Amino acid sequence: MTVVSQDKTSITLKPTGQRMPIVGYGMWKVPRDKCRDQVVESFKAGYRLLDNAADYGNEKEVGEGIKKAIDEGIVKREDIFITSKLWNTNHAPEHVREACVRSLTDLGLKQLDLYLIHFPISIAYVDPAVRYPPEWYHDGKGPHCTLEHVPLQKTWEAMEKLVDEGLVKNIGISNMNAVIIQDLLKYARIKPAVLQIEHHPYLVQAPLIKYAQKNDIAITAYSSFGAQSYVELGIDHAIKCPPLLEHDLVKSIAKKAGKTPAQVLLRWAAQRNIAVIPKSSNPDRLKSNFDVLSFDLSEEQMQQLTNLDQGLRFNDPGLYFDIPIFA
Amino acid sequence: MTVVSQDKTSITLKPTGQRMPIVGYGMWKVPRDKCRDQVVESFKAGYRLLDNAADYGNEKEVGEGIKKAIDEGIVKREDIFITSKLWNTNHAPEHVREACVRSLTDLGLKQLDLYLIHFPISIAYVDPAVRYPPEWYHDGKGPHCTLEHVPLQKTWEAMEKLVDEGLVKNIGISNMNAVIIQDLLKYARIKPAVLQIEHHPYLVQAPLIKYAQKNDIAITAYSSFGAQSYVELGIDHAIKCPPLLEHDLVKSIAKKAGKTPAQVLLRWAAQRNIAVIPKSSNPDRLKSNFDVLSFDLSEEQMQQLTNLDQGLRFNDPGLYFDIPIFA
Repeated sequence: MTVVSQDKTSITLKPTGQRMPIVGYGMWKVPRDKCRDQVVESFKAGYRLLDNAADYGNEKEVGEGIKKAIDEGIVKREDIFITSKLWNTNHAPEHVREACVRSLTDLGLKQLDLYLIHFPISIAYVDPAVRYPPEWYHDGKGPHCTLEHVPLQKTWEAMEKLVDEGLVKNIGISNMNAVIIQDLLKYARIKPAVLQIEHHPYLVQAPLIKYAQKNDIAITAYSSFGAQSYVELGIDHAIKCPPLLEHDLVKSIAKKAGKTPAQVLLRWAAQRNIAVIPKSSNPDRLKSNFDVLSFDLSEEQMQQLTNLDQGLRFNDPGLYFDIPIFA
Repeated sequence: MTVVSQDKTSITLKPTGQRMPIVGYGMWKVPRDKCRDQVVESFKAGYRLLDNAADYGNEKEVGEGIKKAIDEGIVKREDIFITSKLWNTNHAPEHVREACVRSLTDLGLKQLDLYLIHFPISIAYVDPAVRYPPEWYHDGKGPHCTLEHVPLQKTWEAMEKLVDEGLVKNIGISNMNAVIIQDLLKYARIKPAVLQIEHHPYLVQAPLIKYAQKNDIAITAYSSFGAQSYVELGIDHAIKCPPLLEHDLVKSIAKKAGKTPAQVLLRWAAQRNIAVIPKSSNPDRLKSNFDVLSFDLSEEQMQQLTNLDQGLRFNDPGLYFDIPIFA
């Protein structure tokens, strides 16, 4: 069973005993030219976890921020927790290490605290010299991707070797559901420490979370504010969906608690022992997003938010490609 | 892409080119003492596919029915299509063949036309001498089961060997969703011919079906009438759910078509190129259930039925055990 520290600020990762901060700073869509300063600001605001991915295209700039913060004495390497993610084009065992080393190099680190398989999807390898990050490999003919037949077990075994070699401390998974996790737990020599999933009151996923936490897999939630990031991407059902940050219930709970709607949404997750990784480029919001451990929601408020569940998923490759991983 | 015969009566299974009847007779919950006669009656009514499983506990009696029908010249072996399923306790490679041979022996056959993995769940082996079928291994302390760590790939490889050995013609899967199927397709030497899933207008699963059919996996629907079978099992949300057979829309479409609500529900599936395997112990219903290829629903009627979708699943081991395969 997933264990949260007494002061609520961290979750102990079972495979290594390492503590993962329960609030982190998510780097998805942080513009490259703001990354360095934002990383430094986030450390100043108290963040100690940065959630990165090769796919976000900004790991070099994040690395500059980490270096600056360490050089200026704001943080020490051993006090921060750095996550990155293996992209879909590098699932073949012979390409896993290369991807990890590239992320380490860009981030300026010798070891990642956590390395996740970004999606349970393997697509054709793209030489970094040709295109980095390769994304879903758009070619001007609309989004598409070429699948490559790499069973998840092969990729996971290569991830385990990264731990053996000391390149990463913990390994984990993202965007997976119960049946594939069950299968992975059957062959994993090193168990996944973390499962990172889309998670907000419109997509509660209680059975999946219960299953993972019971099996000592810590949950990290992304897209805690719901549709927001996907509206910008022009995704139809995200645009049509009433924004959680403006939802009457969320606003009314925020008002009673003397907090912002964003804080309420983050607190709702954290109070269910789920780590959160909000992104903000606004210095005030960056600070307020971090302040989600200083108050509690009542059981009734927690339940009211949970009751907003509609099983509504915004980040689903099945909607854009023929890869319905959540169907 | 899944191919249906011009007369709509069969689906061609891609791996072997064998044709699978689009309407079959499902043996789940057919009482042992009625099995033999029901099998004979079903053949007389025109059925040519029997959907069995070790778990249904009646394969010996089904076998008696097959023998009687062949002996009496009602059908020939080569005209009928017999399916069985590997139970969860026999996923370990060394137990797969034993399970298949037991089903073959009980059914009185030398070869199965189709053998499915019943669930993507492996539970501890139970010696058939101790208990057969082993079910979920209730022990008087309420339902529970002891999981065994057999990765799906190991079980699938053992299934492939059954084809090599000639014990089964086609192999397939049941109760699986897209992410685990994608993974299976990556390592499968012999691709799954069929995916059997719960499917009715309350659980449409359009993306999963589209994905499977596009990948040459034929779909067989079970529980085409929805909650019915689960009401008898005392399952709460099945009891509370308005029965599909009494749904106003289904009744009104049936009235217009001059058919029964059951025929409408079966036709709705068949018209989507999905095979159906209704069960009935009533001779008239047995006959009328088979008559679902002689009429068409309009596009509007098809859509109206599809619009009843609620993602409502009744056969979910995650509800009874800690095995949330659909979460």
